Amino acid sequence: MLMQTHEARISALREEMKRQKLDGFVVPISDEHMSEYVGAYAQRLQWLTGFAGSAGSAIILRHKAAMFVDGRYTIQVREQVDGTLYEYASTLETDHAKWLVAHIEAGARIGYDAWLHTKKWVDTLGAALARKGAELVAVERNPVDAVWSDQPAPSPAPAVIHSDEHAGQSSAEKRAGVADWLKSENIDAAVISALDSIAWMLNIRGNDVDRTPVALSYLVANADGTADLYIAPEKVTPALEQHLGNAVTIKPREQFTAGLSEMSGKTVAVDPEFGVAAIFQKLADGGASPVAMRDPAILPKAIKNPVERQGHRDAQARDGAAIAKFLHWLSCEPSKGGQTELSAAAKLRSFRDETGVLKDQSFDTISAAGPHGALCHYRVDEDSNLEIAPGSVFLCDSGGQYLDGTTDITRTVWISGDGDTAEPPAEVRDRYTRVLKGHIQIARAVFPQGTNGSQLDAFARQYLWEAGVDYAHGTGHGVGSFLAVHEGPQRIAKAQGGQAGTGQELFAGMILSNEPGYYKTGEFGIRIENLVLVEERDIAHSEGTYLGFENLTWAPMARHMLEQSLLTPQEIQWWNDYHAQTFSVLAPQLDGDVLAWLEDACQPI
Amino acid sequence: MLMQTHEARISALREEMKRQKLDGFVVPISDEHMSEYVGAYAQRLQWLTGFAGSAGSAIILRHKAAMFVDGRYTIQVREQVDGTLYEYASTLETDHAKWLVAHIEAGARIGYDAWLHTKKWVDTLGAALARKGAELVAVERNPVDAVWSDQPAPSPAPAVIHSDEHAGQSSAEKRAGVADWLKSENIDAAVISALDSIAWMLNIRGNDVDRTPVALSYLVANADGTADLYIAPEKVTPALEQHLGNAVTIKPREQFTAGLSEMSGKTVAVDPEFGVAAIFQKLADGGASPVAMRDPAILPKAIKNPVERQGHRDAQARDGAAIAKFLHWLSCEPSKGGQTELSAAAKLRSFRDETGVLKDQSFDTISAAGPHGALCHYRVDEDSNLEIAPGSVFLCDSGGQYLDGTTDITRTVWISGDGDTAEPPAEVRDRYTRVLKGHIQIARAVFPQGTNGSQLDAFARQYLWEAGVDYAHGTGHGVGSFLAVHEGPQRIAKAQGGQAGTGQELFAGMILSNEPGYYKTGEFGIRIENLVLVEERDIAHSEGTYLGFENLTWAPMARHMLEQSLLTPQEIQWWNDYHAQTFSVLAPQLDGDVLAWLEDACQPI
Repeated sequence: MLMQTHEARISALREEMKRQKLDGFVVPISDEHMSEYVGAYAQRLQWLTGFAGSAGSAIILRHKAAMFVDGRYTIQVREQVDGTLYEYASTLETDHAKWLVAHIEAGARIGYDAWLHTKKWVDTLGAALARKGAELVAVERNPVDAVWSDQPAPSPAPAVIHSDEHAGQSSAEKRAGVADWLKSENIDAAVISALDSIAWMLNIRGNDVDRTPVALSYLVANADGTADLYIAPEKVTPALEQHLGNAVTIKPREQFTAGLSEMSGKTVAVDPEFGVAAIFQKLADGGASPVAMRDPAILPKAIKNPVERQGHRDAQARDGAAIAKFLHWLSCEPSKGGQTELSAAAKLRSFRDETGVLKDQSFDTISAAGPHGALCHYRVDEDSNLEIAPGSVFLCDSGGQYLDGTTDITRTVWISGDGDTAEPPAEVRDRYTRVLKGHIQIARAVFPQGTNGSQLDAFARQYLWEAGVDYAHGTGHGVGSFLAVHEGPQRIAKAQGGQAGTGQELFAGMILSNEPGYYKTGEFGIRIENLVLVEERDIAHSEGTYLGFENLTWAPMARHMLEQSLLTPQEIQWWNDYHAQTFSVLAPQLDGDVLAWLEDACQPI
Repeated sequence: MLMQTHEARISALREEMKRQKLDGFVVPISDEHMSEYVGAYAQRLQWLTGFAGSAGSAIILRHKAAMFVDGRYTIQVREQVDGTLYEYASTLETDHAKWLVAHIEAGARIGYDAWLHTKKWVDTLGAALARKGAELVAVERNPVDAVWSDQPAPSPAPAVIHSDEHAGQSSAEKRAGVADWLKSENIDAAVISALDSIAWMLNIRGNDVDRTPVALSYLVANADGTADLYIAPEKVTPALEQHLGNAVTIKPREQFTAGLSEMSGKTVAVDPEFGVAAIFQKLADGGASPVAMRDPAILPKAIKNPVERQGHRDAQARDGAAIAKFLHWLSCEPSKGGQTELSAAAKLRSFRDETGVLKDQSFDTISAAGPHGALCHYRVDEDSNLEIAPGSVFLCDSGGQYLDGTTDITRTVWISGDGDTAEPPAEVRDRYTRVLKGHIQIARAVFPQGTNGSQLDAFARQYLWEAGVDYAHGTGHGVGSFLAVHEGPQRIAKAQGGQAGTGQELFAGMILSNEPGYYKTGEFGIRIENLVLVEERDIAHSEGTYLGFENLTWAPMARHMLEQSLLTPQEIQWWNDYHAQTFSVLAPQLDGDVLAWLEDACQPI
């Protein structure tokens, strides 16, 4: 039944392609802002193919089609996407250009939506197709939209004010900073299309994208400190209008294209990573000179100001109490049987709701029992829902959105069973302890100013490497302040593999996750994640500026998962210090059984 | 007197620039092969300015000139180059383009010798000058050569056969491998201009460059397995001709330019790092299509074959015995007073000569007493020669060229003085031990296939970083087999800073140095260097191919420099294992006092 739907959809798309004289069309998961998570209206790939992952794409030719996913989704794509309609391709081995060149003829016209791709993608693929005698064609109207009869409308939710009390800096000051940069670079304006950059620049938030409190809009920041905000009029309340002030001109979002065409003679900065190809094209068509430069909001947004730093400390302490209640619940209930991934996720949500100030989760909770823990980006639904079985590993990665900060924490525990399964097996303890040792190495790292995250990454992996294993994801990502839970530009990750941002120097005030893991396909997954804040260190006789990490996340780790013989005295000291601090941060927020459990969980080892 | 000479020389050069209608000229330390060390005939920068460092350049304008050096030579350049003739510029802050654009007028003609620069340098600088309305001009004849009346001729030394017994693979096999690659890439030929690549490809060696046994020549390797060798006829003996065989056509070196012009219609690979701009220009002028691709000899040359691996083990064991004699000498003689950097270097040379098979040193011995140890690339001469004073740190970095391998080793010791200075001060012991801990972390590292050297670099630095200090050089470089002591493409180094090759994946069979250090300006320097060989590791339950390092260098480290309280039990175990193995490798080659000393030096701690 489901498969028939997707067969009908690809057929309808092919009819539309024929009408538009296209031999192929590329369907990414993407929106006009290159958002990591996109609104329902932009979920074209899922509608077309059934694929529900967060990264992937499809290419549809007249008589052939392929789905492209990375290593995280190798299994999921086979479960969700019909193999008779789509060939499965790995983005590690095959890119769009390679696949297309192998499957098209000279003269082919391959369509793309210029609002959903970067200029670099367009230039690279266009050149590859040209060498084959084929053409990459920007469509007038996305052919998926043409055949998607019940496509949702973009969210009409109002944009709201994010108070200076939480932002720590006024929008006028932020715009003045960007204006100074524009003047120093001899640039007239910057087109800012990343939704979290706009939210940060204007101290506004919204409700248009799942889990990330941003408002659909575009911003043009001018070198005189003024700005043009393109946003649906229904989103703008009088209070918001007053907050934005006279220096920000509000224009309807649909006039953005026309606005780009009216910048003739101006030099305009566009971020090549977040500014889609259409923005470059419309600017150039209108006589402006687009220059590819990093979105000027990105670095100041990543370097948290003192108010944001304190907000994160407060939010993480509050969130840690909810996690402690959940860990206590996990220590009692699933062992009795009958608890599931969905019931656990709901329980965790209820503990976060009890804070009274939760605005949203920061992403869909990864509530992963047993083998599901090995799927790094697992998302539970009614179909996949597993029991959290006694005698198994349970991994939970979750986060909350609070006005003062965004949280992200992973804990992995053993669900105690009977007899032999009361305690985790030796392999699980070995892997958990190696993951922990890596986590501690990052937490304890000291490094000179000028260091980037790729230089620290191996610290987290070394004890797994010694055992001949590794994990296929980065070690740490940036985190927003009541914004995106994945925020650039800094990362702790391997430099190779095309993960962006690992060359970014770390600055005091940046937040990073610290989340090494280990995944045994079909059996279990382990991850231990805290957030940390880059801070300057005062070292006697230091010969330069040195940095380290302040820990932000407080919740007990799983003592019962430890293989203590693998820990050094220094690591044991770290564990004991961490848990003493966790107790002192969380105890005042808890009572009764949970407090008693916390006290026990935080005992020194 | 010296200064007057350099003033006369720059004046003569300016006269010649005027004759050639040039407003400026760029003088690098470079030869036609982009060699790291260049022959006497190519030492134009030293002749012109007096600068004797191994990296740097000058730009001469009509009324102004600047010397460009990196951080290693900040002090040296001020000692050797007249500040009234040259402005000092740091390559970290100022590149040629930036400096020129600031100091020239529109219409200026800036000359360069296309045989001494890469195409990338030419393209980048040419574009920058064009934006200023100035022009970068390839000269017909290098104006330095025109005024350098006693410029040495290139070395006439004969090229010699490097036997298959040491090479481990015949030249015909190597050429066949390159031919297969050329065919698979649809390329007709590769121009190979790096001298060590030519030596490796043909199994020949030479004596034309200090410390590196290569022969001045160019090679064109063809897709049919044949090759054209451009070399001065005086270098070719009948035996060499027979060794090269019929598939290698020998042509006079001066016909190379003409040869490039005769490749019309062919697609020709040229390494953008080692192929100078002139090669690209001459090929294009002659109707060939040069494509920038990595020299196909570089990777197979770096991955040592089993014969080369065994050769290195043998050479390092032999060299270690010479080092042990030297360390024993250091433990006795300098404390009595009267020994100097020069006398120590001579002593070390004599111990290496005693092997009876030393072909040359692999670089000029860094024999550095006290504060000279803090100059990472210090080179002793009669003027700089310091006493190796009792109660001071002595650092010695040296290597030998043997037919079966090239060595490179650094040891740092305390020269015992009287009373308080009998033992090293706490600061020296602390720093030595932190350097050692980093060395051990590299030595013990285990990492998955696909890892590059930049991912391992921080392992070596972490204990120094904890103390707020670092070292301003890479952690490890590749090493040739009776070839260059610095050999690419692999390196262990920070990824940033423009050091080439750190993105190169490490393969089993590659050799690297492991040489962390610490330098306190004006006081002392510490470095501990062994060579290691990448080897595959067999790990139970491993989920992939994992690599580690086999140690190649055996010589005692300085027990008296240790602060043992900083060492973990694992590190103490490594030290004891290393010294037990050192004793078993070296003892059979030694006797008498040296053997007794070795036995003591290798006792467990």
